[in-house]
Amino acid sequence: MATQRRIDLVLDSVKRLLRIGATANLLNLLQKQHPADLAQIFTELQDKEREAAFTVLADRNGRLAMEAVSELGPEAGAALLATRPAEEIAKLAQEIPSDDAAALIDYLPEELSAAVLHLMRPKESTVVENLLEYAERTAGRIMNPNVFALSEDVTVGEAITEIQSARDVEMVFYLYVVDERRHLVGVVSLRRLLLVSPETPLKRIMTADITSARVDMDQEEVARQVAAYNLLAIPVVDAENKLVGIITVDDVIDVIKDEATEDIYRLAGVAGDERAFTPASESLRKRLPWLGINLITAFFAAAVVGLFEGTIDLFPVLAVFMPIVAGMGGNAGTQTLTVIVRGIALGELSWSNSRKALVKEVLVGLGNGVALGATAALVVWLIRGSPTLGLVLGLAMVINMFVAAAAGTLVPLGLRAANVDPALASSVFITTMTDMFGFFSFLGLATVFARYLV
Amino acid sequence: MATQRRIDLVLDSVKRLLRIGATANLLNLLQKQHPADLAQIFTELQDKEREAAFTVLADRNGRLAMEAVSELGPEAGAALLATRPAEEIAKLAQEIPSDDAAALIDYLPEELSAAVLHLMRPKESTVVENLLEYAERTAGRIMNPNVFALSEDVTVGEAITEIQSARDVEMVFYLYVVDERRHLVGVVSLRRLLLVSPETPLKRIMTADITSARVDMDQEEVARQVAAYNLLAIPVVDAENKLVGIITVDDVIDVIKDEATEDIYRLAGVAGDERAFTPASESLRKRLPWLGINLITAFFAAAVVGLFEGTIDLFPVLAVFMPIVAGMGGNAGTQTLTVIVRGIALGELSWSNSRKALVKEVLVGLGNGVALGATAALVVWLIRGSPTLGLVLGLAMVINMFVAAAAGTLVPLGLRAANVDPALASSVFITTMTDMFGFFSFLGLATVFARYLV
Repeated sequence: MATQRRIDLVLDSVKRLLRIGATANLLNLLQKQHPADLAQIFTELQDKEREAAFTVLADRNGRLAMEAVSELGPEAGAALLATRPAEEIAKLAQEIPSDDAAALIDYLPEELSAAVLHLMRPKESTVVENLLEYAERTAGRIMNPNVFALSEDVTVGEAITEIQSARDVEMVFYLYVVDERRHLVGVVSLRRLLLVSPETPLKRIMTADITSARVDMDQEEVARQVAAYNLLAIPVVDAENKLVGIITVDDVIDVIKDEATEDIYRLAGVAGDERAFTPASESLRKRLPWLGINLITAFFAAAVVGLFEGTIDLFPVLAVFMPIVAGMGGNAGTQTLTVIVRGIALGELSWSNSRKALVKEVLVGLGNGVALGATAALVVWLIRGSPTLGLVLGLAMVINMFVAAAAGTLVPLGLRAANVDPALASSVFITTMTDMFGFFSFLGLATVFARYLV
Repeated sequence: MATQRRIDLVLDSVKRLLRIGATANLLNLLQKQHPADLAQIFTELQDKEREAAFTVLADRNGRLAMEAVSELGPEAGAALLATRPAEEIAKLAQEIPSDDAAALIDYLPEELSAAVLHLMRPKESTVVENLLEYAERTAGRIMNPNVFALSEDVTVGEAITEIQSARDVEMVFYLYVVDERRHLVGVVSLRRLLLVSPETPLKRIMTADITSARVDMDQEEVARQVAAYNLLAIPVVDAENKLVGIITVDDVIDVIKDEATEDIYRLAGVAGDERAFTPASESLRKRLPWLGINLITAFFAAAVVGLFEGTIDLFPVLAVFMPIVAGMGGNAGTQTLTVIVRGIALGELSWSNSRKALVKEVLVGLGNGVALGATAALVVWLIRGSPTLGLVLGLAMVINMFVAAAAGTLVPLGLRAANVDPALASSVFITTMTDMFGFFSFLGLATVFARYLV
C-alpha cells in the first residue's frame, strides 16, 4: 500500500493517461490501487478528470470503483455518482455492503435516490430502505445488517466449518451467539475457538457479559463504548435484544472524526455537515443565520459603546484603545471555552469537578489579565504620555479577562447541565460578553476618571 | 459493561463506602468494574477520594488499578501515581504492557521517573527506556514491543499451537511472519489459518504486500494509514525492516482523538497538550505567550484606528459602529478558516484543488457581506437617521467579509504549502487582518464621505 509520494506518482500518471486517452493503461493502473488510495486520487483530480477516471474503472470493475466511492465519504461519493443515470447507480450500489450503499443513496438528490431504490433488486433495496428508516446518527443507521452469528447449540467444530464457508460478512473476529429466536446471548473470540475441543457447544465457552448497542443509540455513544472498552466491533440489537447488525471499529473511527469535526465547527459557528467543497449556495445558507445572530449581538456591543458617546466626544483617543480590551478578552475567553468544551467532549469534565475547573480558569484569567494589562498600561503611558489612560486600559483588561474566564467556563458547563451541546455556546456568547464587558469597563472607568485624562 | 447511569450508581456507592470506611466492600465493588469504567469513576471523584479509592484497589489488585490508570491517559494517570513512593510505582508499572508503562513514566516528574526506572526489574526498565528513546509522537513511542510473530517456515499446525500457548501479547488477529533475521516478510489472518491444511508452511499462504510503519513515522500518519486501510493493527519496523512492535487500532483511536484536540486547541491558541485540569501555573505559562502575540497585533489594529482619530473627533458616532465591522469580519473569517483547516486535516484539500475552495469561499463571503451589510446599513439609517453612515457601514462590511474569506482560505493553505501546521494560523492572523481592514475600510470610507455625514 501507498505513501503520499507513491500516490502523487500514480496521480501524475492518471492525469497523463487521461490526457492522451490511454484507457486500457489507465484501467490497468487504477485496478492495482487500494480503494482508499483511489479515493485520495479521486479527491485530488479536477472534477472532469475524476468523472472520466471513475467511468473507466466503473465500466470494468464496479466493485472497486464503488469501494473507492465509499472511501470518499457519503457526501463527496454521492456527488460523484449523481451525474450518472439511475440504472447505473442502482447496479453499482449492489456491489458494496448495504450500510455503505445506504449512506451514499441518502446523499443523492431526492428524486434520484427514489429512482435508484426502485431499480435495485427488491431484496437489496429493502435492506437499504430499512437502514434509512433509522434516525440519522444512530447505531441502526451506521450498522452493517450482514452480521455473522451462530446458535448457542452449535459446536466449536461446526462453527469453524461455518466460518470457513462464510463470505461477504463483516470481519469474523468475534463470533456472536444467538438463541433460537435470534436474541443475542454471548460472544466467542475466534482465538478461543482454537483452544477447546471441537465437540464443545458454543454456549459452554461463550462470554455472556457482552457490550451491545441498541439500534437507537446515538452514534457518538457507540463510538465512546467501542473506544473505552477497546473493542474491534460492537453488535447492534433491537428493543427485544435481537441481533440485527454489527458496527466495526473502522466505522467507529469515521464517527470519531465526524464528531471531532462537528465540535471544531460548532465552536466557530459552522454547521457540522459542511465540508470544504459544499456548494457555495448551501454554505451561504448554512452560515448566514449564525452571522445574523452575530450581527444582533454586535449591535448590543455597539449599544454599550453608545452609552459613552459623550466621553468619546471628549476623548477620541478612547476609540483607539477600545478594541484592545475587547479583543484580548475575546481571545482569552476563546482559550478557556475551547479547553472546557473539549474537556466535556472527552469526558474529563462534569458538574462534579466543575468548581475545580472554574477556580483554575479564573486564576489563569486573572494572571494573564495582570501580566498583559500591566504591559498594555505601560505601553500606552509611554506612547500617549498619560498614566491615567494606561491605568484605565490595564484595569479594564484585568476585569475583562476575569469575566472571560468565568463565562468561558460557566456557559458551556451550564449548557451541558441543561442537556444542550456545550460546543453550541461557542465563541458567539463569549465574545459578545467580552465585547460588552470590555467596552463597559474601559469606557466606564474612563468616564469615572475623566478629569484625570489628558 | 456499563452505561453512564450504571457508572453514576457505582460512583455514588464508591463515595458512600469511602465515607464510612468500608474498605472490604469498596474493594469488592471496584474489582467488578471494567478498567475503562474505573477510569471514568476516578475522573469524577474529588482528588482525595480518588487517591483513597486507588490505594484500596492498588493494594490488592495492582493490575486492574494500573489498567484503570492507563485508561485515564498518561497525564492524569501520572498525576495520580506521582503522590506515591517510587518503589510502589515501579512495582505497579510492571503490571501493565510496557508501552502503557512508558507513557505514564514519561509524564512523572523527572526525578521520580528516574527513580522508578532504577527500581524496576532490569529487563522491564530496559524495554521502557528503549521506548522513551524514540521521539515523541512517533510510531516507536506508541508501539507495543511485545508483538507476536512466527518464522516463514513454521507450518499452519505449528502456528495454531503457538497461538494457543501465547499469553500477554497484543491481539493475535493478524499473525506477522518474519524471516530468520526477523525482517517482516508477510502477514496471515487468523481466519486464513482455518482454511488450509496444517502442514502448509506460512510462507505459502501469507500476504507479502503488507502495510507497516517505520519507528520514526509520525503518529498522525500511522493513524491515517490504519484508518484509510481499515486495519486492526499495524506492524512497526526499524530502518532495516525488522519487526520491532505493533500498534493496535485502540491506540490509533487515542491518537485520532489527541490530534483532533490539538487542531481544536491550535485554532483557539491553546497548546495541544493542555487539558481541563492542567495546573493553573502551567496553563498560565502556556497561554501567556499566545496572548502576548495577540496584544501586539491588537496594538496594530489600534494604530489603524489612531490614523483616523481626527475623523472620530468630528464624528464620535463612528466609535459606536466600528466594532460591528471588525467583529463580523472576524466571525466570518473564523468560519472560513475552520472549514479550510479541517478540510486540510481530513485530506480533502490540497494545493491542486485550492483555487476551487478560494472561489467558493469568496462567493460565500461576498454573499454574506451583501446580505448582512445591507441589513446593518438599514438599521443604522433607521436608528441614527443618516443614510450615509449606513452606507459607509454596509460597504465596509462587504469589503471586510471579502478580505476575511480570502485570508481565511489563503493563510492556512499557504502555511500548509510551507509545511507549517495550518491550524497554527488560527484566528490570530485572521482576526488581526479583519480588525485592521475593518477599521481601515470603515473609518477610511467615513473620512472620504465626511462631508455627507450628519
